[in-house]
Amino acid sequence: MATVKSELIQNFTSEEAVQHNKISIVGAGSVGTACAISILLKGLSDELAIVDTNEGKLKGETMDLQHGSPLMKMPNIVSSKDYRVTANSNLVIITGGARQIKGETRLDLVQRNVSIFKVMIPSIIEHSPHCKMIIVTNPVDILTYVAWKLSAVPKNRVIGSGCNLDTARFRYFIGQKLGIHSESCHGLVLGEHGDSSVPVWSGVNIAGLRLKDLNSAIGTDKDPEQWEDVHKRVVSSGYEMLKMKGYTSWGVSQSVTDITESIVKNLRRVHPVSTLSKGLYGIKEEIFFSIPCILGENGVTDLIKLKLTPEEEARLRKSADTLWNIQKQIKL
Amino acid sequence: MATVKSELIQNFTSEEAVQHNKISIVGAGSVGTACAISILLKGLSDELAIVDTNEGKLKGETMDLQHGSPLMKMPNIVSSKDYRVTANSNLVIITGGARQIKGETRLDLVQRNVSIFKVMIPSIIEHSPHCKMIIVTNPVDILTYVAWKLSAVPKNRVIGSGCNLDTARFRYFIGQKLGIHSESCHGLVLGEHGDSSVPVWSGVNIAGLRLKDLNSAIGTDKDPEQWEDVHKRVVSSGYEMLKMKGYTSWGVSQSVTDITESIVKNLRRVHPVSTLSKGLYGIKEEIFFSIPCILGENGVTDLIKLKLTPEEEARLRKSADTLWNIQKQIKL
Amino acid sequence: MATVKSELIQNFTSEEAVQHNKISIVGAGSVGTACAISILLKGLSDELAIVDTNEGKLKGETMDLQHGSPLMKMPNIVSSKDYRVTANSNLVIITGGARQIKGETRLDLVQRNVSIFKVMIPSIIEHSPHCKMIIVTNPVDILTYVAWKLSAVPKNRVIGSGCNLDTARFRYFIGQKLGIHSESCHGLVLGEHGDSSVPVWSGVNIAGLRLKDLNSAIGTDKDPEQWEDVHKRVVSSGYEMLKMKGYTSWGVSQSVTDITESIVKNLRRVHPVSTLSKGLYGIKEEIFFSIPCILGENGVTDLIKLKLTPEEEARLRKSADTLWNIQKQIKL
Amino acid sequence: MATVKSELIQNFTSEEAVQHNKISIVGAGSVGTACAISILLKGLSDELAIVDTNEGKLKGETMDLQHGSPLMKMPNIVSSKDYRVTANSNLVIITGGARQIKGETRLDLVQRNVSIFKVMIPSIIEHSPHCKMIIVTNPVDILTYVAWKLSAVPKNRVIGSGCNLDTARFRYFIGQKLGIHSESCHGLVLGEHGDSSVPVWSGVNIAGLRLKDLNSAIGTDKDPEQWEDVHKRVVSSGYEMLKMKGYTSWGVSQSVTDITESIVKNLRRVHPVSTLSKGLYGIKEEIFFSIPCILGENGVTDLIKLKLTPEEEARLRKSADTLWNIQKQIKL
Repeated sequence: MATVKSELIQNFTSEEAVQHNKISIVGAGSVGTACAISILLKGLSDELAIVDTNEGKLKGETMDLQHGSPLMKMPNIVSSKDYRVTANSNLVIITGGARQIKGETRLDLVQRNVSIFKVMIPSIIEHSPHCKMIIVTNPVDILTYVAWKLSAVPKNRVIGSGCNLDTARFRYFIGQKLGIHSESCHGLVLGEHGDSSVPVWSGVNIAGLRLKDLNSAIGTDKDPEQWEDVHKRVVSSGYEMLKMKGYTSWGVSQSVTDITESIVKNLRRVHPVSTLSKGLYGIKEEIFFSIPCILGENGVTDLIKLKLTPEEEARLRKSADTLWNIQKQIKL
Repeated sequence: MATVKSELIQNFTSEEAVQHNKISIVGAGSVGTACAISILLKGLSDELAIVDTNEGKLKGETMDLQHGSPLMKMPNIVSSKDYRVTANSNLVIITGGARQIKGETRLDLVQRNVSIFKVMIPSIIEHSPHCKMIIVTNPVDILTYVAWKLSAVPKNRVIGSGCNLDTARFRYFIGQKLGIHSESCHGLVLGEHGDSSVPVWSGVNIAGLRLKDLNSAIGTDKDPEQWEDVHKRVVSSGYEMLKMKGYTSWGVSQSVTDITESIVKNLRRVHPVSTLSKGLYGIKEEIFFSIPCILGENGVTDLIKLKLTPEEEARLRKSADTLWNIQKQIKL
Repeated sequence: MATVKSELIQNFTSEEAVQHNKISIVGAGSVGTACAISILLKGLSDELAIVDTNEGKLKGETMDLQHGSPLMKMPNIVSSKDYRVTANSNLVIITGGARQIKGETRLDLVQRNVSIFKVMIPSIIEHSPHCKMIIVTNPVDILTYVAWKLSAVPKNRVIGSGCNLDTARFRYFIGQKLGIHSESCHGLVLGEHGDSSVPVWSGVNIAGLRLKDLNSAIGTDKDPEQWEDVHKRVVSSGYEMLKMKGYTSWGVSQSVTDITESIVKNLRRVHPVSTLSKGLYGIKEEIFFSIPCILGENGVTDLIKLKLTPEEEARLRKSADTLWNIQKQIKL
Repeated sequence: MATVKSELIQNFTSEEAVQHNKISIVGAGSVGTACAISILLKGLSDELAIVDTNEGKLKGETMDLQHGSPLMKMPNIVSSKDYRVTANSNLVIITGGARQIKGETRLDLVQRNVSIFKVMIPSIIEHSPHCKMIIVTNPVDILTYVAWKLSAVPKNRVIGSGCNLDTARFRYFIGQKLGIHSESCHGLVLGEHGDSSVPVWSGVNIAGLRLKDLNSAIGTDKDPEQWEDVHKRVVSSGYEMLKMKGYTSWGVSQSVTDITESIVKNLRRVHPVSTLSKGLYGIKEEIFFSIPCILGENGVTDLIKLKLTPEEEARLRKSADTLWNIQKQIKL
């Protein structure tokens, strides 16, 4: 039967397989979908796949994203609860997992997520054996370690979004305090994403001028200006937002999109992301947490060796201990 | 006392008031915040204000948006439950309002939103007497009329997002059926945003070739290919998504961002948006619904006068009647 | 010896080969470099290679482009007179070739460019056997045929930028006449890029309304409004700019970037580009010229079969004859 | 007479004057037009005006830019040799002026450009009394001073593009040496744009770690790694490109677009741009050269007070002397 399509279109070639710059997102919740819209609006991918176990929610979110298609240069978006839809991804962003139940210990939560990752990670690797993975699910540092162990891929290809977000918040609050755009406020937060994170006050600078050279007590208890409050707000702001809006999404999605851009465009920019940190800064255990990394097409290609102050290094080791105390109890 | 700030920064000028390209969003729910992130990522504004009555939610969403600041060229974002924060806006996007309660009639919902708009609209106009407004809250056509009446501003400055979204969906579904990107699939959905919307099959075309010239029965019951199903999916997809994800956000936010771009950049592109349609296509009542409009810095500057088929015009009048039957009962 | 680099950076992984979305540009003249800056600003590539025989000019242009690097998310840019630098390109844009010498016949110019292409095309294919090519060098239609013959790759992978630019100009001039943004003015120019190009007045439309339905004489001598002047300006504007600025660059670079986006993001949008047109619209010869094509990751994947008026089809065949009269004399 | 336009379009409103975010560019040469295409592609303006005394060239460039209109969200572009076309600009970018003639002294060149600026600057201010100006014409520091004097506007509104470009080049070369993207390489070049510019080695850092802490001799003659070569390349690369391509355009246009973005979006980012520097770093004369400035909607709103080493400060004063020796001889 002649159809509009057969009357309108004449095929010109049989399609050949072409290597795509495909990105997959696991989890169609508030973080996963906020990552999706940002990646689409920034045009970082020519194919986007989304996976979620909740098929209704997944289908609804996928349709909703697709409907913007005539209004942006949107590529193909596919979704399924089956990981086959992620086949041949260049990058997989993992936002799915269990949330903390009231009364549950942190270790119990980790252990529940380990169970989920035991299914998820091998499925991802089966369909995209060469992909890089960005882990976003919390507790992100421990789950990045878990993903690395379960995937058995080289360490450079498993990256935790970690303190890239804490660092963005840190720079935002410094910028607010000084009346300067955060893009011009330089400084890093390292270690565990969360409570034990470490602000590197010795390196915080504007235009190359270290704030410590203007206020030698910066970041300490003796600082009359109490700059450490900036870091305290970084730690507390996640909790505050949880209380006020129930989850966080926009900040973390911008952070993940930023990491994604460095990887898919092979930019070799420096990001504080969660990586295998053993051997640096006196870390002896096989833990993952955020240290400054060069990110490119192979994921973490190189590490930056900072000269921390003894206090900063001590805080970082303490942060490592916090993680190790959980990690060593995990049953993989 | 010497502070880091006083040691670091020397003031060079007293700030003068500069005319901003300020956009305000009323409502920090899923639609309002999805509009915010899209407008920020597209860089359409140099100042963004958000208003919501739920101060906790509002503060949480604002913080979450701000934390992406070092990672994009983000301008100033402010928020408050007080409309003063919107002062001197160029454009105000209204996404707030009541949602339908189970068992409530449509008219009851409208009447509840009229009560909300009676406070909201005068507050907006008080602080930004020259702004354009995009109404997104549903039922959008009736509430655009209400906003126009309550604001007492010229008709060109009150725009309902209307069928700009239905049209995007229509083009997406046509594109899926033909294997062509929706950006190259041209066609309009007019009338009421929702159930009584009208697909203009007589104008649907690819590369200027009307599909009707390939299938004269297109859009009718006699069409063996049943293209009208495409329009049925447009109407049903909103309900489907409501069922599957509880609300819609991404599609509508892309649609609103698209309208926003035409206005703030004075592009003079053609959009099917909800406007005062009396006098065209046989419409005799003072109703707002979607017809193709030229959008620029003054909002709706001109209307496109289509040549509809008698069937299309009849459907459009019926859509107008549907709206009028509600609208005439509203107490302003 | 300890260096800053060895002290600063610790290698984390040996780099593995990753498939890039690499674009190469042949020719570092005004068109080639304008394409480069547009592709960089739109972020369409993760590696850019430029080739030119004039090594000084090439090095100067490359340095100049690289210096914007901290100010945009710029990927790696490499250049050389040796085609090895283009290895593994996904897409190669050919802007280089000879310019017309005073007194030279068109055929002589073509023949000189054939000599250049005989070296260039096999070198490109040697290093990127799977690449798509966009030919921009004039006379573009004949040289696209030449590139296809010399490359011996499937027809879908050799695309002439052709009337995608004439169409952009056509839409711009229509938009100026109507006071509507050209993005909302739909219409195509087909056939030879240049003098014998054919405006498809039967399909020109705004919001799906054909201008021919408002003015049945549109595009003919009998039209009191003389819309055909719009097409005449399309044809003459290239010559005018040559006279006024010596070359054209911005318009053509935007057109090429637009085609590039459809290919590298696999968008499947419809573009009037130069392709092997034998068998359609009564064309019997193996000529390339612009007809509406669906462009995706495989280049031209499908053709749109328009219903032209007999006058339009006659003009298109005449345009084909013009090309054939040159093409049949070429010695490959 | 009924025309297509009158049949198609129904006017809906009389247009009201709306405050535009208008940018004007003086000079349609290689720098001016490269700025134009970058500003258009980044969507930084809703109206662009271009002025040049060479009307043919101007018209050619304007047409060429306009023809990309359907392919990007391009706003209105106007041009004329008459400055009236720039009326009500928010920002004016000055790229026009005389080029050095063989055998001409630098002072003679300045004096010739002073004559040109005596006509240009009052014309700009007449039509846009509240605009900010970015001076790009060389010698940029002296001409920024000249523009300030001739305009009689507050100092914060006259900005020389200055070492924002030298700094971009400096960061690019550091990045190349370290294998890190220049966006992650922080450092400033201050003082005169050109030969006497001063690299601030004391502040150069990666992730907050000062390279000087890894190599205390960095930037001096005693440095075994000879990092000062990086600065030498910054100074020489302009001359090299002049020799190789005859002018520079892409790097400088990205730098100007970056400054433009900070101003029109009121970003308050830190840029090394040419400003009235008297009173800082031991500068006693009323000279303009590059020091780090906070740029926002009022132009230079604040200055950053760096802690330079005695050597850096001495070099900066020497750079100031170089400028003063020319400047004091100028006849305004």
